[in-house]
Amino acid sequence: MSSSSSLTLALDAMGGDNAPRAVVEGAALALSREPGLSFIFFGDSAQIEPILSAHPALARVSRIENTETQVESCEKPSAALRKKETSSMGRAIAAVRDGVASGVVSGGNTGALMAMAMFILRRLPGIDRPAIASVFPTMGRDTVVLDLGANTACDAENLVQFAVLGAVFSKIVRGVDTPDVGLLNVGTEDMKGREEIRAAAAILKNVPFPGRFSGHVEGNDIPKGSVDVVVTDGFTGNVALKLAEGMGRFSSHVLREALGSSWLAKAGALLAWPALRALKVRLDPRLYNGGPFLGVDGVCVKSHGGSDALGFSCAILVAAHMVENGFNARVAEEIRNLSESESALKSRDVQSLLSSSQTRPLP
Amino acid sequence: MSSSSSLTLALDAMGGDNAPRAVVEGAALALSREPGLSFIFFGDSAQIEPILSAHPALARVSRIENTETQVESCEKPSAALRKKETSSMGRAIAAVRDGVASGVVSGGNTGALMAMAMFILRRLPGIDRPAIASVFPTMGRDTVVLDLGANTACDAENLVQFAVLGAVFSKIVRGVDTPDVGLLNVGTEDMKGREEIRAAAAILKNVPFPGRFSGHVEGNDIPKGSVDVVVTDGFTGNVALKLAEGMGRFSSHVLREALGSSWLAKAGALLAWPALRALKVRLDPRLYNGGPFLGVDGVCVKSHGGSDALGFSCAILVAAHMVENGFNARVAEEIRNLSESESALKSRDVQSLLSSSQTRPLP
Repeated sequence: MSSSSSLTLALDAMGGDNAPRAVVEGAALALSREPGLSFIFFGDSAQIEPILSAHPALARVSRIENTETQVESCEKPSAALRKKETSSMGRAIAAVRDGVASGVVSGGNTGALMAMAMFILRRLPGIDRPAIASVFPTMGRDTVVLDLGANTACDAENLVQFAVLGAVFSKIVRGVDTPDVGLLNVGTEDMKGREEIRAAAAILKNVPFPGRFSGHVEGNDIPKGSVDVVVTDGFTGNVALKLAEGMGRFSSHVLREALGSSWLAKAGALLAWPALRALKVRLDPRLYNGGPFLGVDGVCVKSHGGSDALGFSCAILVAAHMVENGFNARVAEEIRNLSESESALKSRDVQSLLSSSQTRPLP
Repeated sequence: MSSSSSLTLALDAMGGDNAPRAVVEGAALALSREPGLSFIFFGDSAQIEPILSAHPALARVSRIENTETQVESCEKPSAALRKKETSSMGRAIAAVRDGVASGVVSGGNTGALMAMAMFILRRLPGIDRPAIASVFPTMGRDTVVLDLGANTACDAENLVQFAVLGAVFSKIVRGVDTPDVGLLNVGTEDMKGREEIRAAAAILKNVPFPGRFSGHVEGNDIPKGSVDVVVTDGFTGNVALKLAEGMGRFSSHVLREALGSSWLAKAGALLAWPALRALKVRLDPRLYNGGPFLGVDGVCVKSHGGSDALGFSCAILVAAHMVENGFNARVAEEIRNLSESESALKSRDVQSLLSSSQTRPLP
């Protein structure tokens, strides 16, 4: 079990409800899609070994690093940090810091993973708060939404940095030439919404950044696919993510109910089965799995805790694409450009831009 | 055209994209459902009169108050307030203050309507900020969500008051005996989320109020129907409302696409048509139209600006049910109870309750 390939990923084999099976089998699936990958599994080798040995092709490009502890799903980030040198999660992240792996994927506790990634890998220069991103399926283009939960409150500067992170991700990982970037708000008019959002808009209108600023967007613009990137604070983003997932389940539920409600409907469903099946495949949430932590100095991707092998393989591919396309180097460059423009744009100017857009609509 | 009935509603005949036709025809539909209603239409009588005369039963229980101005959909609330004595919206609200009508319904500019309602009707004693509520269809019970956009930022006390308003609405307008009330958050654990939400939870756990406090709920709990009432700030609520509406359109869109993708699928859709049609009727957003302004001292309901006659009739029925069930008197009573319990529960206690639930999960 040694690797001669150029792209090695560290996998937290103990994170997630279906670990380590989903992690190992997910790696096997990812390898069948991207033959250049190799893996280091961090976790209990007694559990990993038998699953890995059932996948000879994977075993040839993988090795196991036995670890003694693991982060529990309900553990507080502060408690989890104490296990940073012993746990499967902490050691997998450290492999990226030490240059042994190019990226890390974990299905474990999100808060702990973010805290450890920030502690072990540090932030990219110029980034105050990293953000969790994810791709949403929409009626139009797929849309990258961030932050999905790393920061419950954000200031204007955080939102501007998220816009850069999201735009670079959309550009070099999703292949969008000039991504349209919108700020999530309660209305599209300049005067609407919270002050930090209006301040971020005032800055984004006046700095060159790796996308096209589309102004404010609303909740319905996400499923509509109005823009390539939607920027919001981690509280709103987390609610939106879970609501969208829940609405997807709601729609399937009521459709299944309707198609089972009569013999005629059942016959119709049978005829339409291939089309409905294709729809289900297209919207399969597992295909959208993989929430990259953008702004961390190292590629770190969170897989959904409940995901299976297919879902985990998609998270692995997100990490692989970020590494292949040099995501972090590109972000560092864009942030340097931004800082120069922002120094030119004095904070006094932002204040005057803001005051011209009036006060909030409601008393 | 005079009214001998007991429940008169003031209608802003000029508010909304399809005004005044949707307003007048909506009133006709509402009257066919609730024969005890009567109406005063505020607006341009030259436009209203011909539509009204086509509905003799409605005309018998209605009168028109001619008004000279109207609030535009893009007008700022501060500018709209200057038209409070001349506009169809302002005069319809004033009819409630003056006791000429028991409630008001408008499809006009939401911000202007809230500002005018607060200015003309004032707030209920003990309520600091009124909230906009609406009912969401879910997999389980219908769920009342508030605030949907009146307050972009809320403190703990606001959220506690929203919980009372939502619980009373669920109880006496939606007929739920002991409504389950949840606070929208990014996780269900006590330590999760923003400080004001954790503080509101600490208060709600320790005061008697007209429902059962279910703790924190997440975005997916809305479509799941986990609780009867979901309480959140107006920013998050507005994003959630528009996202849920957009996800509904997204689901219909992809389903239509799938069912049109092949001859077999089209044949299946034809067989399943009655079932799909019933599903469409069940989820028709017009049936969920009508966002009451809870906490205003007078019944005021916002109809969606784009709604047609059916949608407007549903908003009218929401207003009628609030009046019939004495919503505001009941809220006043519950707020008195709450204030007494809260005085007993010193703010020091809230602080100690909070500190026991630790700090935020992420640095």
